[in-house]
Amino acid sequence: MKKIEVGILGATGMVGQRFASLLEHHPWFQAAWFAASDRSAGKKYSEACSWRLRTPMPDSVRDLAVNECKPGHAPQLIFSSLDSKVAGEVEKEFARAGHVVVSNSSNHRMDADVPLLIPEVNPDHLALVHEQRKHRGWKGMIVTNPNCTTVGLVMSLAPLDRAFGLDKVLVTSMQAVSGAGYPGVPTLDILGNVIPYIGGEEEKVEREAHKLLGKLEDGQISKGDFIVSAHCNRVLVEDGHTEAVSVSLRSEAKLEDLIEAWKQYRSVPQERGLPTAPKHPIIVRDEHDRPQPRLDVDVEGGMAAVIGRARRCPVLQFKYTTVSHNTVRGAAGAALLNAELMKSEGYLD
Amino acid sequence: MKKIEVGILGATGMVGQRFASLLEHHPWFQAAWFAASDRSAGKKYSEACSWRLRTPMPDSVRDLAVNECKPGHAPQLIFSSLDSKVAGEVEKEFARAGHVVVSNSSNHRMDADVPLLIPEVNPDHLALVHEQRKHRGWKGMIVTNPNCTTVGLVMSLAPLDRAFGLDKVLVTSMQAVSGAGYPGVPTLDILGNVIPYIGGEEEKVEREAHKLLGKLEDGQISKGDFIVSAHCNRVLVEDGHTEAVSVSLRSEAKLEDLIEAWKQYRSVPQERGLPTAPKHPIIVRDEHDRPQPRLDVDVEGGMAAVIGRARRCPVLQFKYTTVSHNTVRGAAGAALLNAELMKSEGYLD
Amino acid sequence: MKKIEVGILGATGMVGQRFASLLEHHPWFQAAWFAASDRSAGKKYSEACSWRLRTPMPDSVRDLAVNECKPGHAPQLIFSSLDSKVAGEVEKEFARAGHVVVSNSSNHRMDADVPLLIPEVNPDHLALVHEQRKHRGWKGMIVTNPNCTTVGLVMSLAPLDRAFGLDKVLVTSMQAVSGAGYPGVPTLDILGNVIPYIGGEEEKVEREAHKLLGKLEDGQISKGDFIVSAHCNRVLVEDGHTEAVSVSLRSEAKLEDLIEAWKQYRSVPQERGLPTAPKHPIIVRDEHDRPQPRLDVDVEGGMAAVIGRARRCPVLQFKYTTVSHNTVRGAAGAALLNAELMKSEGYLD
Amino acid sequence: MKKIEVGILGATGMVGQRFASLLEHHPWFQAAWFAASDRSAGKKYSEACSWRLRTPMPDSVRDLAVNECKPGHAPQLIFSSLDSKVAGEVEKEFARAGHVVVSNSSNHRMDADVPLLIPEVNPDHLALVHEQRKHRGWKGMIVTNPNCTTVGLVMSLAPLDRAFGLDKVLVTSMQAVSGAGYPGVPTLDILGNVIPYIGGEEEKVEREAHKLLGKLEDGQISKGDFIVSAHCNRVLVEDGHTEAVSVSLRSEAKLEDLIEAWKQYRSVPQERGLPTAPKHPIIVRDEHDRPQPRLDVDVEGGMAAVIGRARRCPVLQFKYTTVSHNTVRGAAGAALLNAELMKSEGYLD
Repeated sequence: MKKIEVGILGATGMVGQRFASLLEHHPWFQAAWFAASDRSAGKKYSEACSWRLRTPMPDSVRDLAVNECKPGHAPQLIFSSLDSKVAGEVEKEFARAGHVVVSNSSNHRMDADVPLLIPEVNPDHLALVHEQRKHRGWKGMIVTNPNCTTVGLVMSLAPLDRAFGLDKVLVTSMQAVSGAGYPGVPTLDILGNVIPYIGGEEEKVEREAHKLLGKLEDGQISKGDFIVSAHCNRVLVEDGHTEAVSVSLRSEAKLEDLIEAWKQYRSVPQERGLPTAPKHPIIVRDEHDRPQPRLDVDVEGGMAAVIGRARRCPVLQFKYTTVSHNTVRGAAGAALLNAELMKSEGYLD
Repeated sequence: MKKIEVGILGATGMVGQRFASLLEHHPWFQAAWFAASDRSAGKKYSEACSWRLRTPMPDSVRDLAVNECKPGHAPQLIFSSLDSKVAGEVEKEFARAGHVVVSNSSNHRMDADVPLLIPEVNPDHLALVHEQRKHRGWKGMIVTNPNCTTVGLVMSLAPLDRAFGLDKVLVTSMQAVSGAGYPGVPTLDILGNVIPYIGGEEEKVEREAHKLLGKLEDGQISKGDFIVSAHCNRVLVEDGHTEAVSVSLRSEAKLEDLIEAWKQYRSVPQERGLPTAPKHPIIVRDEHDRPQPRLDVDVEGGMAAVIGRARRCPVLQFKYTTVSHNTVRGAAGAALLNAELMKSEGYLD
Repeated sequence: MKKIEVGILGATGMVGQRFASLLEHHPWFQAAWFAASDRSAGKKYSEACSWRLRTPMPDSVRDLAVNECKPGHAPQLIFSSLDSKVAGEVEKEFARAGHVVVSNSSNHRMDADVPLLIPEVNPDHLALVHEQRKHRGWKGMIVTNPNCTTVGLVMSLAPLDRAFGLDKVLVTSMQAVSGAGYPGVPTLDILGNVIPYIGGEEEKVEREAHKLLGKLEDGQISKGDFIVSAHCNRVLVEDGHTEAVSVSLRSEAKLEDLIEAWKQYRSVPQERGLPTAPKHPIIVRDEHDRPQPRLDVDVEGGMAAVIGRARRCPVLQFKYTTVSHNTVRGAAGAALLNAELMKSEGYLD
Repeated sequence: MKKIEVGILGATGMVGQRFASLLEHHPWFQAAWFAASDRSAGKKYSEACSWRLRTPMPDSVRDLAVNECKPGHAPQLIFSSLDSKVAGEVEKEFARAGHVVVSNSSNHRMDADVPLLIPEVNPDHLALVHEQRKHRGWKGMIVTNPNCTTVGLVMSLAPLDRAFGLDKVLVTSMQAVSGAGYPGVPTLDILGNVIPYIGGEEEKVEREAHKLLGKLEDGQISKGDFIVSAHCNRVLVEDGHTEAVSVSLRSEAKLEDLIEAWKQYRSVPQERGLPTAPKHPIIVRDEHDRPQPRLDVDVEGGMAAVIGRARRCPVLQFKYTTVSHNTVRGAAGAALLNAELMKSEGYLD
């Protein structure tokens, strides 16, 4: 099978680098066209990009030219990890010009006609693009994945919501510095420190969780019927957001029932064997001191939510901790899996 | 005034070092007698102790002999920061022998006849020692301060409980490595990591909060009538526990009311001008990204709870973040203030 | 005595903050006028400045206006910690307008007629300003202090040079992140890492050491007659540059002689009791594992060079490690001591 | 081909874990027998071992029993990463009992009849085992690899020694915490700090370099004819020792000649295609700020020495920085490659 060529908007940033890395041996897609800010445009990727990943830059992309963020010669399928300051307009421009924009940027996530997807959670929401194209008169489309903190949380909540109905969720995140991009967090701000604030993050988590666990009916998504409250913190971790979660549920459940619901959880990406899908989207660990970002972030290629410390919560009903990889499952890997879902549904033909 | 000589049990540990440091210029007390494990006994303090504080070891204690943990030649007033493996029996032995043991160890905190004190919160509980001496037939006594995570939390809760009545409390802690003593946390465990578990900590927080905010009536402490749930985590911070707190209250309150309650909060230590008492036990910061352990831990000599990010919580009613110094306000400084309270009430005459 | 008002160019940066902090209780000088980049000009200091020090911003400067970097209403004495991109011209403009510019910036350090001073090492070089004013026709003047890595090195070398004559010096630095200013080093660059390169640093160390240990004769400074080679590295330390030094000397010396030369070292600032002068400019530690930046950086208010691990070097003759505070002794404190030297010599009357 | 069963002494430690991990997919060897301290003996590996690597424990070893460190049922080939407190006697006991002990421990490295090997540097020294067996009357033998700091240094020196003759070497190391094992370095010692001392390390580097680059003649190794001086420091890095090196050579060389010598360097492991041999034992990077442990430590599976910043040294002749993986190339990988060399020479038949 000839691989499908893809473009990356924002290719030089931290998430752009993850895209380049994850695409290196991808069976369906091939990185073929890069774009970034005007400062980088015109250079070779290896010159324009301050590569920060521990794995080396794939040889196949070193000499790729970095383009301006304009449609025209770009491939049909476009991954976007542009800064939200510019992503809004640029992504619309590409969609208008017929491109399928699979975006990690926050700008369009909450648009009523834009799917916000976790393929294991709400794959059916993808159908919202039909509304989108109708409304907007676009040949292309925009599809989004959630914020890096929302992904891990909602993956851990979805099996509970499906089985018992969610009532209330209180989450405190301890987020990795890679979530702030590069250069991102100054060392002097975070060395030996916790920063108890990440601009806009708590609102995103609360809002996006409702859309992801909402229902698509008559071309509209009704908000999930539960309450979420988030405390978001930055800690001195490289990759991997840790989240301490308390929940209450609508129907009776025992602790073992929750654990069983997590362990059994499979969804469309697993059933279809999508290339980037984790075999087990949720891993439950029994040790008393897991999950930990340093030890658990790379399991299943960084695509799983790892859960541990499940126990009763005296205030709500249950509590647990979850860790997920913020630039893989929470960004580039999330978009890639969205694109794979779209391919498997015929949206890329 | 001649200073009162004091002894320190566990003088070579992290908290013992804090005692030595805080006593250096103390107006009432003077470090005069040190004891530690058998391994250290017989050495000079400067030889026995692997000093870890950023401020240098006070010259006045360098040549002090380190004794075995036995009463006999020890002064009347004894601070204890012994490891909980041995503190239980040793502290009883000292109390039996007539010493006033002001302990930071966890062993006796929950004993029904042992005061667990935060002088700004429940100074009246000190009277429990009369029961203690009666029951146990001791000439001496044991008085305790809470766990380092409990202190900051309960200091932030006390003004709310007093003004509005507490209903529910959900707290997620991000705790400094100094809380685990020395050698404590191995670097390989915490570099670039979060450890979502600290043995026994969540239970301590939940239990001790109830005792501290309980009422002393007829020689007994009734548990505070509220629910607490704690998630305790270790992060890569040297000093200062950060806690993300959500609360609901028994009576109607606006956000401004909480802030006013915190800002106005004064108690016995402030009224009596105890030497180690912070002028403001609670500091409220307005900046959107404070408190932070690196920047706020040393305010008021490490004796205040610094609160920020107060806002509404969709799940409970309000949420905020508090930072306090775990080895000062949460350990040595807490015990020192307890002793000052006792002195001001005539217990040390 | 009425205090002398001083101005600070670059007041909002990391070194500017150190100036503000060190001046808070200064007996001779008082921070009275602040200037910074156009972005900050017009704001209050507390608004313009992202304060990063662990000690709080002095209340006395919170409301000070931040001005543009133009002479006119500024006091006679000006401390400069401007970015080297702009310092060159601005400092000349102030000197031309009659100001005494005591600069921490690198631009004019190597100018033949500009004193590069460590008051304990080459206080006589100050006389070079007479040449400077003659040459340039300025009413004011520029005086500089060395690079933060050079200071600690040269303080440790000066007693050896004076007593035995220096021959060769090989230094490997492990430098703190605060040396790069704020925002400075991105966390993703330095977490769990060493960066074996700091732009221009090795050249500065090699060049400045020669000027500092050179002789002033006939209005010119002859280079010190020795060879220096530097390896400069960035490590994950907040404050305090650590330097591993090997030296060979021109005349015979035993290890004890070096240690004695360091311990006995006193100079003009100590003799005159300048307010910021360390009592002992060089501290020698006997422990096998000192100095360490975390434990030794604040000794003598951050103004000493702390030396340890002195021993024979098989390749050169001796080796040792030195630690000094890069933003105090290596920047703001260095300039402050320069100004105190100038005051004590009548340059500020 | 049936795999050769191997045993691991010290299997639960940091280096033992690396052995287990490197052997997981090894084409020739198979982990079959584990031993560790009495505390661990009798347990399953997964219970006895506090696994610290980022890659998960291989399933094939989870249920392996941990034995006492006694020969008897152990396979012929034994890897040893025992603590040096016990390694000396235990390794002799195994060799006496006929085992081939390939040791990473320091105890026997400097024994006159024990080969100290880097297969790329001095593979011919392996023949020293004939003397060893003769002298000691052993059926088995002991073969060692150097200290983790020595390996990277000597790999970078060997091509220079071979081509130009070494004269003097001055090295300053910045060493990772994993080099101290587990629990190893306490967080409170190294957070925001540099420790300028590692017990015995400087002596090991100086001594072992001479043996490795010495000549085997008439059953004896003559010391290499050059001088080495080492400054050893601990920094906050997880894996990867960084070394700043200055050298002078015996014959004329240009900088390009050194670079060419490094790039061209191949040796026996490369020629024979040993399974763990890096394709390029030395990688030269051109960027001005490389090598860095975070980015370069895993290249060639952690088996290469990565060199950068090659330039002239004013004091000696040349200087450069090298990074190598301290628990792979500097420990478990080193021993594994030694065993592969031995197998390729028929010592394991």
